[in-house]
Parts: sequence; C-alpha cells; structure tokens
Amino acid sequence: MDLSVKILPATNDVHGGVIVDLKEPMDSEDFATLLRSSLLHWKQQGKDGVWIKLPIELVNLAETAVKEGFWYHHAEPNYLMLVYWIPKTGCTIPPNASHRVAVGAIVLNDKKEVLVVKEKRGGFHGIGVWKIPTGLVDAGEEIFEAAIREVKEETGIDTEFVEVLAFRHTHNSFFGKSDISFICMLCPLSFDIKKQELEIEAAQWMPFKEFADQPFNQMHEPFKYMIELCLAKVEKVYNGFSPRPVSSYFVKELNYLYLNSHGLDKSS
Amino acid sequence: MDLSVKILPATNDVHGGVIVDLKEPMDSEDFATLLRSSLLHWKQQGKDGVWIKLPIELVNLAETAVKEGFWYHHAEPNYLMLVYWIPKTGCTIPPNASHRVAVGAIVLNDKKEVLVVKEKRGGFHGIGVWKIPTGLVDAGEEIFEAAIREVKEETGIDTEFVEVLAFRHTHNSFFGKSDISFICMLCPLSFDIKKQELEIEAAQWMPFKEFADQPFNQMHEPFKYMIELCLAKVEKVYNGFSPRPVSSYFVKELNYLYLNSHGLDKSS
Repeated sequence: MDLSVKILPATNDVHGGVIVDLKEPMDSEDFATLLRSSLLHWKQQGKDGVWIKLPIELVNLAETAVKEGFWYHHAEPNYLMLVYWIPKTGCTIPPNASHRVAVGAIVLNDKKEVLVVKEKRGGFHGIGVWKIPTGLVDAGEEIFEAAIREVKEETGIDTEFVEVLAFRHTHNSFFGKSDISFICMLCPLSFDIKKQELEIEAAQWMPFKEFADQPFNQMHEPFKYMIELCLAKVEKVYNGFSPRPVSSYFVKELNYLYLNSHGLDKSS
Repeated sequence: MDLSVKILPATNDVHGGVIVDLKEPMDSEDFATLLRSSLLHWKQQGKDGVWIKLPIELVNLAETAVKEGFWYHHAEPNYLMLVYWIPKTGCTIPPNASHRVAVGAIVLNDKKEVLVVKEKRGGFHGIGVWKIPTGLVDAGEEIFEAAIREVKEETGIDTEFVEVLAFRHTHNSFFGKSDISFICMLCPLSFDIKKQELEIEAAQWMPFKEFADQPFNQMHEPFKYMIELCLAKVEKVYNGFSPRPVSSYFVKELNYLYLNSHGLDKSS
C-alpha cells in the first residue's frame, strides 16, 4: 500500500478547517506518513485549522502528532484533542472552556430558618462554620436544576427554585480557570432532613439570625452581602433574576434566559 | 542506578493526593519503572488521587502513564494532565472547566442609537443582521472588563460599564461544553467608530427602533427579550446586576459580586 498518496479520513468543519476523528488502531510510522501527506493535501485545499481527536486507546499516536507540529487543545477523560494551524496568518482557534460554574442554595422555611450543613472536606471543613449547600453545575445542566439537585443530595430536602439573588466571579480556582457562583434562593417543599454521608458531617434548620451572626459570615464580605440580600428578599424589596424558557434560531432545544421579571413585567 | 526503590518527585495536594510535575526528559522504560514503584509507595502512604502534569515536550511518556491505568483530566496547549485514583472507593476528582462565558454589549448613545456590527464569520455572517458586539470572557478576566474590551476591539468605542441586564445559559456549544452569555448595558465615552478589520465587516450607530425592527430580532425570543429589557432600562423601570468589589477569606485578590444594587440600597 502506497501510504504517501493516501490521506487521513477527515470531515470539514464550518469554519474552513478539518476534523480527523481517529477510531482504529494504527502503527505510529504509518500515522506519521499519512499525517504528512494529509497536511500537504489540506494545505493545497486552503484549509486552516486541523483537529485530531485521539481516543485514549490511541495515545501511542500523540507523540507523532506533536512531532509534526500539533499542540493540545483540550482533553476529556477518554480522549485528547490535538490541533494545528495551516495558514501563515494569526491562529483564530478558540480556547477551551474557561470557567467552572457553581451554585449556592439559600433555603428558607416559614419559621425563618435556613437549611445549613457542615462539610466533611474542602475549605469550610474544620472551621466550625454552618454553610448553605453548594456545588458545581455540570456542563449541560440548568442552574436552577443544579441548585435543586445539590440541596436534595446533601440534605434530602425537596425545593422549588425562586431566584438568582446575585453571582460572584472569582479567579485562579482550579488549574488557572475562573469560577462563577450563582447565589440562589429556593423554597422548601419538604422538611425532614436526610443528610448525605460521604461529604456532609451535619445538616439542620437554623434560625436565620443565628446563621447570620456566625463570626465567619460577619467577617467576610461575600457572606455579609449574601445575608443582606436574603433579608431584603424576605422583606420583598429585592428582585433577583429568574429563569424564562426561550426558543432560538441557533439552538434547537429550549434554553433559559435569567432576568429581573419584576422590572420586565412592569415595562410590558 | 536501582530505579525500583526510587520514586517520582511529588508534592502533596490539600485533598490527600499527590502531584507530579515532570520537567526533565526521561526514557519511557525508566518512567514505567519509577511510576510503578511510586504508585506502590503512595498506596502504602494512603494517598488517593495521583496527578501527573506532562509538558508537551514529554508527550513520549503519556502512553506509559495510560498503560499504568492513568486517564486524561484536561489539557492546555502546552501540557497534558493525567490522573489516577488509588482507593477502592468512588473517585472524587472534580471535572475540568465546564463552561465558556461570553458577553454581549448594548451601547446606547444620547440619541437613542445603538452601536451595531456585521461580522465577517460565525453564525451571524451572511444573514444580513446588524448585531451588538459580543465575545468570550477569558479565564481571569472580569465580565465588565471583557464587555468594555470587546466593544473597543470591534469598534474602537470607549465605554463605561452600567449593568448586566440578563444572562442566558445554552448547552452543547463547543465540544459538549455549556455557555453563559451575559447581556450587558454600557454607556459610550467616545463616538468615532474605528472598526476592526479581521472580524468585522461593518460597524455603525443605528437608531434603536431600526435595530429592534430587524425581522431576525423579532423572530427569535432571546433577541426580543434583549430589546424589551433595553427599553425598560432606558425608561428606568428595569434593574439588572452591577458589580461590587468584595474581599474574602478564601481569595487573596478583590473579586466581584454582581447584584441588584437598587434593591440592596433600599434595604440597607
């Protein structure tokens, strides 16, 4: 077989580049030959970005791609994405995901008690602070779903989502990425706590004043603000953002726009 | 040298795991021997997660790590991060960044004209629509800074940040990640447009009504909402979220909390 005139199977992307989605095992020498003739071919075709998706089973081919000038774009547990830019002009390949997204859930009952936990690990462990349930929003998950899920997982309490009261942007949190934490207000639909064993040391309903008066919350501005916002919300003088489903030209599925419904309803 | 009793240089992380930050070139046979004895050693020490950071120059060692049971955690252009979980219990290694964050900038002048552009590429290209400047927020960059930067880059206009009017959450946008787009209101500080050549086909100040009446904006809910919010803001009946710097226990640098200042000021 004359490998020099064969090229790798590739599909065009919508930005003028090509994507190679390798699936079959290959000898790294054969891969090197194929890759060189493929790059020549794509260059003649005027292609710009070249993407190679290598399943983890084909890790043996990564070294060859790097030797030919490819670099890493991103990796997920089961694959590595390598990339190459053919034109002489500046590379416009967008960077990979830059943020983690988290939720903090304020669940207040009719007795003005707040649902709080003590964690078994992490930054809050061992400092004696009762905190609200928090957790990460997965890719593909709605923010309000994540808040409801985290409360249920950590405490067994069912809730209804009310509003995003505020959000906080922090940096350098996890391998140089940034975090956005949405502070959410939720309304409880059940009251019997069944705490999660793996991560939660204790969970309880705590009078809001006792929660707010913890020295930790008084000392640290983000927590002080959270308490102020929560009180303002209870007194009905604060309006956060609530989710509205919207349909769109670019996205097939419904998605959510978070806005100040109070302000919007007034205007329309 | 008896490699079997030597272990890889590693530092402890705060979660009970170890991090190997390889920098020097190594033969893959030597690496395999060292890795096996190191894993045995860390297991005896009761460690859980093992992280190996391989600079792209050491791509030749990736195959060995995978053969020993490591998988990919993430990759950036110049390194690959591999991970392994020693305990028999469930792996608690957090996933990598899940989201991209974008801004859309509504810049309105005193004549009720909005700053709009036509793009040379992407989803809006070729459909004749005048759109507001948009772009990605980099890891480490503030949302308000990104909005100001994008407007300046695309149109040359200087602005002052006013508010986040709303945000939108969409999914499956870029290699399975999710996007959060913050719709921002900005106030112009200069008026002479100098458009960017690479990505922008045209830029102009357009009467708001003409912008709003574009059939595209009327057909697609997210854009319809954006126009409604903007009008409500101009009529001073809408309050979005504005950034407040906060200091914190966990983070050394100042960071920003975005909240409804109007509601908060009323309550305090």
